[in-house]
Amino acid sequence: MKPMGAFPREFVAQSGALTIGGRPADGWAVEAGDTPMFVYDIEIVAARIARFRAAMPAIDLHYAIKANPHADLLAAIAPLVDGLDVASSGELAKAMIVKPAASISFAGPGKRDDELVAAITAGATLNVESEGEATRAFAIGDRLGHTPRMAVRVNPDIELRGSGMRMGGRASPFGVDAVRAAALVKAILAAGADWRGFHIYAGSQALDAGAIIETQAATIALAARLAEEASVAPPLVNLGGGFGVPYFAGDAALDVERVGDALAEALASRPAILGKTRFAIELGRWLVAEAGVYLTRVIDIKQSQGETFVVVDGGLNHQLAASGNFGTVVRRNYPIAVAARMGHAPTETVSVVGPLCTPLDRLGDKVALPPVHVGDLIAIFMAGAYGASASPTAFLGHPPASEIVTGI
Amino acid sequence: MKPMGAFPREFVAQSGALTIGGRPADGWAVEAGDTPMFVYDIEIVAARIARFRAAMPAIDLHYAIKANPHADLLAAIAPLVDGLDVASSGELAKAMIVKPAASISFAGPGKRDDELVAAITAGATLNVESEGEATRAFAIGDRLGHTPRMAVRVNPDIELRGSGMRMGGRASPFGVDAVRAAALVKAILAAGADWRGFHIYAGSQALDAGAIIETQAATIALAARLAEEASVAPPLVNLGGGFGVPYFAGDAALDVERVGDALAEALASRPAILGKTRFAIELGRWLVAEAGVYLTRVIDIKQSQGETFVVVDGGLNHQLAASGNFGTVVRRNYPIAVAARMGHAPTETVSVVGPLCTPLDRLGDKVALPPVHVGDLIAIFMAGAYGASASPTAFLGHPPASEIVTGI
Repeated sequence: MKPMGAFPREFVAQSGALTIGGRPADGWAVEAGDTPMFVYDIEIVAARIARFRAAMPAIDLHYAIKANPHADLLAAIAPLVDGLDVASSGELAKAMIVKPAASISFAGPGKRDDELVAAITAGATLNVESEGEATRAFAIGDRLGHTPRMAVRVNPDIELRGSGMRMGGRASPFGVDAVRAAALVKAILAAGADWRGFHIYAGSQALDAGAIIETQAATIALAARLAEEASVAPPLVNLGGGFGVPYFAGDAALDVERVGDALAEALASRPAILGKTRFAIELGRWLVAEAGVYLTRVIDIKQSQGETFVVVDGGLNHQLAASGNFGTVVRRNYPIAVAARMGHAPTETVSVVGPLCTPLDRLGDKVALPPVHVGDLIAIFMAGAYGASASPTAFLGHPPASEIVTGI
Repeated sequence: MKPMGAFPREFVAQSGALTIGGRPADGWAVEAGDTPMFVYDIEIVAARIARFRAAMPAIDLHYAIKANPHADLLAAIAPLVDGLDVASSGELAKAMIVKPAASISFAGPGKRDDELVAAITAGATLNVESEGEATRAFAIGDRLGHTPRMAVRVNPDIELRGSGMRMGGRASPFGVDAVRAAALVKAILAAGADWRGFHIYAGSQALDAGAIIETQAATIALAARLAEEASVAPPLVNLGGGFGVPYFAGDAALDVERVGDALAEALASRPAILGKTRFAIELGRWLVAEAGVYLTRVIDIKQSQGETFVVVDGGLNHQLAASGNFGTVVRRNYPIAVAARMGHAPTETVSVVGPLCTPLDRLGDKVALPPVHVGDLIAIFMAGAYGASASPTAFLGHPPASEIVTGI
């Protein structure tokens, strides 16, 4: 038997039939018409946003829509946050349906000219990733007769300790190295563009509050230093995100209140040049991961060489990360339940595998589950971020999963 | 500097502008209207098929369409092979456009009832993966008034040594354990279904001819033993595939002629019960991987902390495997070229990264390339299998890649 992650707090005390947004999982499957499917509980997202607001000083909260760009979810989240962060012109178009362009920022190391045109025309803020991109943006702004809104994305000489994905403290395709950032700010000002400040992102999926506190303090100090070098105060400093969620056994949830207290102190004593600066944190995964449940139905249960395999109708084609094949070195189990038997004691050790003809398609490896039968719904938790939109949907020709947002 | 794999043989001697199917890469990009794109050279596929036919004794060749189900490619391959292997009803529908159902077999551990209905109605052969699936197929056949065609997929007590993906010699969701296979054959015969034989697949992506030879011999012996146990000769034995392709530095191409010679000997001396049995090998990757080139354009070239990053307009959203994030533990470089400067000496070490806002999006890590400029096309070779259809296309909202087949 191998361990699995803990159920998110909204589900951990449930017993009997799993309910999502107050409705049994079976009911959602009936509404969708078929499995597999994702259900996103907007109340859970709202609870995370409320917790953030209560914990943090008066800063902006941005939603990084790459985590989950589902249109209904986006429409529900947009009024609850101050900005949306996008990473392509496709995401920009989705974001503009629900938020004014002035509240949208666009990051990405490889923005094409057509993407720069779309962002500048709309008035979204470009998080500029290189001097070359800035030069292209100036030219496009001139040609269009629009003043580009531009923030400078900085590759910090800081790394976020313990983050699942380090994005600072090393050579990077993201942003310009800190030593060149002030010169780029000056170039933006000299070109007559509308300089919006700094975007500094040091890593993601960190569960250690101490590491995030340290990184945020260093980020504020870096922003101040760069502002001094450029002799201009940034209107906004986007401190990045990095708030992780507990996917796996032994993971402890991030102490967001501790992060908030420390950030309040750090901002209270910030250098004078940042006195009038607004600050933002951009979060994707932390806002939506725990709100999503993937429901897939048992097609077959089979024995092989003493092991039991529960074969379900969806797998890595919808849930690549849960299969352990996306950015993880060692495969570990996401939290999994038999939807009809929440809280029941485990009675057997099984592997939950998807329908794809590849050994990679495994959603649960030797997990302990209550009794499970053909036709049961299996729930994979932590499915709200980097699930449906970050999986190889077309692989092996199965249909895409349905996606439903509760309570909207 | 880190090594990269060798260019496929059709490209290794080219100099100057890369040509694919006799046409410069630039011309293909103009035809597609935009980058990124895949070009599949059907002549390369045909050459692999011809080599297989010349090397092998008189056996059937099946194409496993999961490797690349692009409609035009499939239409071009279908007349050149004896059968198509599919893994979902979506793939079955595609295959039936180009091949009669009697030449199509359908494997997959989680076939849904609607998939069994589609296969039985069409007359495709089900590679039955469990006793439970067989029971469902009997019932559906009775209800429809169609006799199901059924082969028994066997989980062999053999593993393919050195294969990239082992699928035998262990507990598995694929097929029934060898000890239960004869009983399942008897049940199929007793139910009045049309028993088509055995499907025995021990692994994939093996480059060692000795390992494949050993596995094929063991597979023939296993099929004979199971036939004896069931007291019936199988019409067909699908020996699986497992033929690998050299992706990485140091990989040596599979000696297919050696495999063919050994298989001819093994078949010549096969047990009497298999005297009238036909044999098939199913190949996906080996037929199409080397025929595909992914072309992506340089958007930006940037320096960070002493390293050079070449940022291109496509990445893991189209080429998940090349980014090292699909079924590989250690990331290694696929062969990569600057399309305009084939055969030119490398002058710099660069990392080729895609446009996605994640450090995972890296197509070439510290590779040595000739001079490269913004606007150049970068070619990623070995892109014909498990590329466009096996990547998270929607991730971050960029457009899908175009796909073009040459010479049809």
